[in-house]
Amino acid sequence: MIEILRSTHQFLIFRQNLPECAVGFVPTMGNLHSGHLSLVKESLENNDWTILSIFVNPKQFGPNEDFERYPRTLGRDVSLVRDLFREGGFEEKGKKIAFFCPEKVSEVYPPDYNTTISVGNELTGRLCGKSRPGHFDGVTTVVFQLFSLVKPNKAYFGQKDYQQYLVIKRMISDLNLNIQIIPMPIKRDKDGLALSSRNQFLTGDQKTEALVLPKILEKIKKTIKENNWLTAQPIIKEIISDYKRSHSWDYLEVLDSTDLKEPHEESHTVVIAGALKVGETRLIDNKLVELNYVR
Amino acid sequence: MIEILRSTHQFLIFRQNLPECAVGFVPTMGNLHSGHLSLVKESLENNDWTILSIFVNPKQFGPNEDFERYPRTLGRDVSLVRDLFREGGFEEKGKKIAFFCPEKVSEVYPPDYNTTISVGNELTGRLCGKSRPGHFDGVTTVVFQLFSLVKPNKAYFGQKDYQQYLVIKRMISDLNLNIQIIPMPIKRDKDGLALSSRNQFLTGDQKTEALVLPKILEKIKKTIKENNWLTAQPIIKEIISDYKRSHSWDYLEVLDSTDLKEPHEESHTVVIAGALKVGETRLIDNKLVELNYVR
Repeated sequence: MIEILRSTHQFLIFRQNLPECAVGFVPTMGNLHSGHLSLVKESLENNDWTILSIFVNPKQFGPNEDFERYPRTLGRDVSLVRDLFREGGFEEKGKKIAFFCPEKVSEVYPPDYNTTISVGNELTGRLCGKSRPGHFDGVTTVVFQLFSLVKPNKAYFGQKDYQQYLVIKRMISDLNLNIQIIPMPIKRDKDGLALSSRNQFLTGDQKTEALVLPKILEKIKKTIKENNWLTAQPIIKEIISDYKRSHSWDYLEVLDSTDLKEPHEESHTVVIAGALKVGETRLIDNKLVELNYVR
Repeated sequence: MIEILRSTHQFLIFRQNLPECAVGFVPTMGNLHSGHLSLVKESLENNDWTILSIFVNPKQFGPNEDFERYPRTLGRDVSLVRDLFREGGFEEKGKKIAFFCPEKVSEVYPPDYNTTISVGNELTGRLCGKSRPGHFDGVTTVVFQLFSLVKPNKAYFGQKDYQQYLVIKRMISDLNLNIQIIPMPIKRDKDGLALSSRNQFLTGDQKTEALVLPKILEKIKKTIKENNWLTAQPIIKEIISDYKRSHSWDYLEVLDSTDLKEPHEESHTVVIAGALKVGETRLIDNKLVELNYVR
């Protein structure tokens, strides 16, 4: 059973009539790929109802970013989820799924809407937040808004947007939202490129160039795994400055995975995070790795 | 029955154990006066449980404001409410009341707390927001935080802070919080001065000086009531510029009461709002009045 709800009004009536049950939520901007589908599958397996939202949120795009060209492919998205639903036998398992895909921006932000939810600079001032001012305010504001309508028990987020995951986790904790956030592993194509709706903008040559991103992340990860953290640090510095000479990097950093600070004495796991511009397209990727202190 | 809860932990257990019932909420910074008590009384009359919070919220004070000297008088506050409760016969009516008075700031904002809720400049950039940058972000953030703990059906706010009332109403609406906000009329002393915890800072002479605030508001109100709005405007302009020559005004304005814009063609009611500095003390007050278009 798949329901498609195109207005907030429709959605609210639908939500009000749901009996008390486990609700999993997968917020997306549509143009689904296997990464999104892995979130949907996880939610279907662990909840009675899964609600998937498709909303290209203008508030999280900067004035010169790709809001307009962001691909909108609702028909295809619905049919991909329908296939997953059928092939996974979820109908037989009594699972249910609804799409919430507001047709207009005003469905999510009514005309007088004037509230912003922000997580502070410690988490949002770095990495993507540095080059995309206001981006995370747009993310937390829309995610709160969707949470307040969907009222999920669990919400599924891909770890490709690792900083986003941390920021939303912070918001959930600070605002006492009773929602469990589930981070899901990055899906990659056969060459190792992290799946993204933006990959389709790449030409063949650009695709080859883009592969430098997962490759260097893997190289740094290997270095950290194979060395004591004290030994690893200067090697990594060199690798990074080497790679930064070529290619157009927005950032390439190794940071503590819990607070996004420079790795410190209490750091246990780091995130190796990169953002690379390939032509007009900005790609992000990351890997998590535990530090060795006694190797 | 009066409960006093001094930690968020205690409060959460208390709240969890409340049966399904009507909960009214009166958020305060303590140092209660008859204005606060009129809110408590209204809540007691209209709800099964009333929760009164006392928390001097550092986030809504600017760096040079009076956070430190803001009066903390918990014992007296509790006994005032106890008297009201007894004298109003609320025990017999089966009413119940709890104080939530977190002892430490970290009870409301845990150490890693890093989220801000802001209402946009259209409402918060004027009047008090103009001279107290960040003030309303502090207000919306703490009120959301308290709402998320208290989970009230109704929340009572005094209209002395009229802009605050509008800002919180906006937040409640935008964030789909299922809370009814009840604005309550300003309480005044026998001379007409609006009750405020800050009045006690005034010397006798300052008290006399402070009375200019309610007096001019009343004068403008009378002018608006007795004239067609077109006729009234130039008279009011003159009154305001007269009064502004003496006294230390932070602002003295007549604005549309719904959006705080300059009165416009669709304006039905205006708020006459003033903020006056008397010595070190900043006092605010306002009056609402309907416009006459056909007199």
